[in-house]
Amino acid sequence: MSVPPRLRRSEADVSPVERLHALVAADMRTTDMLIHERLASAVAMIPDLAKHLIDSGGKRLRPLLTLAAATMGGYSGHDHAKLAAAVEFIHTATLLHDDVVDESSLRRGKVSANIVWGNKASVLVGDFLLSRAFELMVESGELEVLRILSRAAAVISEGEVMQLKSAGNLGVNEEHYLRVVSAKTAELFAAAAEAGAVIASGKGALAEALRDYGMNLGIAFQLVDDALDYSGRQALMGKSVGDDFREGKVTLPVILAVARADEPAKKFWTRAIETGPQGEADLDRAITLVEQTGAISDTMERARGYACLACRALDRVPQSPMRDVLAAVAGFCVERAY
Amino acid sequence: MSVPPRLRRSEADVSPVERLHALVAADMRTTDMLIHERLASAVAMIPDLAKHLIDSGGKRLRPLLTLAAATMGGYSGHDHAKLAAAVEFIHTATLLHDDVVDESSLRRGKVSANIVWGNKASVLVGDFLLSRAFELMVESGELEVLRILSRAAAVISEGEVMQLKSAGNLGVNEEHYLRVVSAKTAELFAAAAEAGAVIASGKGALAEALRDYGMNLGIAFQLVDDALDYSGRQALMGKSVGDDFREGKVTLPVILAVARADEPAKKFWTRAIETGPQGEADLDRAITLVEQTGAISDTMERARGYACLACRALDRVPQSPMRDVLAAVAGFCVERAY
Repeated sequence: MSVPPRLRRSEADVSPVERLHALVAADMRTTDMLIHERLASAVAMIPDLAKHLIDSGGKRLRPLLTLAAATMGGYSGHDHAKLAAAVEFIHTATLLHDDVVDESSLRRGKVSANIVWGNKASVLVGDFLLSRAFELMVESGELEVLRILSRAAAVISEGEVMQLKSAGNLGVNEEHYLRVVSAKTAELFAAAAEAGAVIASGKGALAEALRDYGMNLGIAFQLVDDALDYSGRQALMGKSVGDDFREGKVTLPVILAVARADEPAKKFWTRAIETGPQGEADLDRAITLVEQTGAISDTMERARGYACLACRALDRVPQSPMRDVLAAVAGFCVERAY
Repeated sequence: MSVPPRLRRSEADVSPVERLHALVAADMRTTDMLIHERLASAVAMIPDLAKHLIDSGGKRLRPLLTLAAATMGGYSGHDHAKLAAAVEFIHTATLLHDDVVDESSLRRGKVSANIVWGNKASVLVGDFLLSRAFELMVESGELEVLRILSRAAAVISEGEVMQLKSAGNLGVNEEHYLRVVSAKTAELFAAAAEAGAVIASGKGALAEALRDYGMNLGIAFQLVDDALDYSGRQALMGKSVGDDFREGKVTLPVILAVARADEPAKKFWTRAIETGPQGEADLDRAITLVEQTGAISDTMERARGYACLACRALDRVPQSPMRDVLAAVAGFCVERAY
């Protein structure tokens, strides 16, 4: 009553991801400490380069899932923070290797590591982080968790290769695209959540439900990302627009726009994505085409569908404040575009 | 008596590595089967690219060490082949990432993978192999082995980053060079042997002795490799000569040659390694300089010293035909240059 309204922050102002953070705040501090501790190396370039990405304001969504899942499973040990740190290391390694791969020039609004330190260093530091991730997982001593996360790492690289192979090929359909997205992005969300549940209470209904939640959340997340790459709003978030377009990635906005294209537009897409060359004005035209054909709004609609599936997976989990926040996170991941 | 001499192959004609192969032939067949089985992926580019390296006639020295060590430890299970396959996968992943890193044009006499498939694919397939290696290790269910090999993977990438950082810097001394070699090359030899012993008989004297053997063998191996890169004989082995020189790697032959250089030669090295540019005739001059200063023969001498230390580590191991062959392998690794 006595707190003046201007000093009070209503719940609606706090994003669900922040609320999730608050629910596992102590565990997340331990995780962050571990992350920085295990980045250490006598070779100074390793922490320097890795911190460039790790400290660049990422939301730590994946390790948050691990910590949340462990909490929901009633975990009382200390190894969930190790798993969460491992998950963040795997994620960072894929970003570093993706930077090499994609020649993207902006990542989280900063100049990407491979431009500052070179491709070579990005590859090797990514390898270091991946190896450190496994060391952390091994320390947890839980073989089932090791199985889940090492399999996830293999699936992620398969997804990345699939994506690489299908770049510049407008024959790619929605089904193939979803296979790529499930592997390269959603698998880590799924494994992060599953691993947290398994370390707490072993395999079973909770682990399965949270794995499904992570998988669908991850797909929704990537769909939104792919929509944003054709959106002016993306620029406001400090990320470059048109990365996918320049790399000839055939994402859902393109698949839908091409399916709905008239003859001149079809010719444009063939030249821009398949045969080249791309010109200065092409990105603007591509953005206009995906918007006019409704490809962006339909991609977002699909994302909302997967967010919905993520929430439905949570119905199989006992009611708790954590469960409610996870449901809100799914909604937020889709609405962050607006 | 009745076998004509021309049909008889004397023991001296069979290399120690072949004899080692023969002693673990059945296990090596299982390992090779596993290697090809676990390369499989719905994404065809992955086995295609990986086989390019894995089937290119490598001697499988590292997995041989794992199998030999397991045999010496009296192992009777089946998981040593999984560890051996994992070790070969880790090795292949580092070769793939090293190809990206080094822009080398020849590897085992074949066009390197990154030239055929591109840097991007080499990075991602390397990641896949590293992840598969961890999956295989996890299947063994031995946490101590997982610790040894995941630590080795981290150390290897640290060594590669150290090497990258010191390229083009003639200030590098022999001590630093040996740190790089121990990490980027010898650590995997050491871990491969140690892991085999540990899965058989746990931590202890055998595992320690075989780890020391592997470490010293690995250092000797790399020293010879670095000497060969300034040797015309290298060309006969189907590997390109001068890779290290072109990349400005400061290996022992260079460190020794520079220390013994007169003023014009010092100027040459500074331009060729530090400031550039390198010209057409520079490699020939470099080869002449390392040979004239005795840098090659001294590098080989150092290699013999480490091979000797490797054999001495075997003194701490009970006598057996396997032990004798491992000792012969150490000698052979140094003499292969002649």
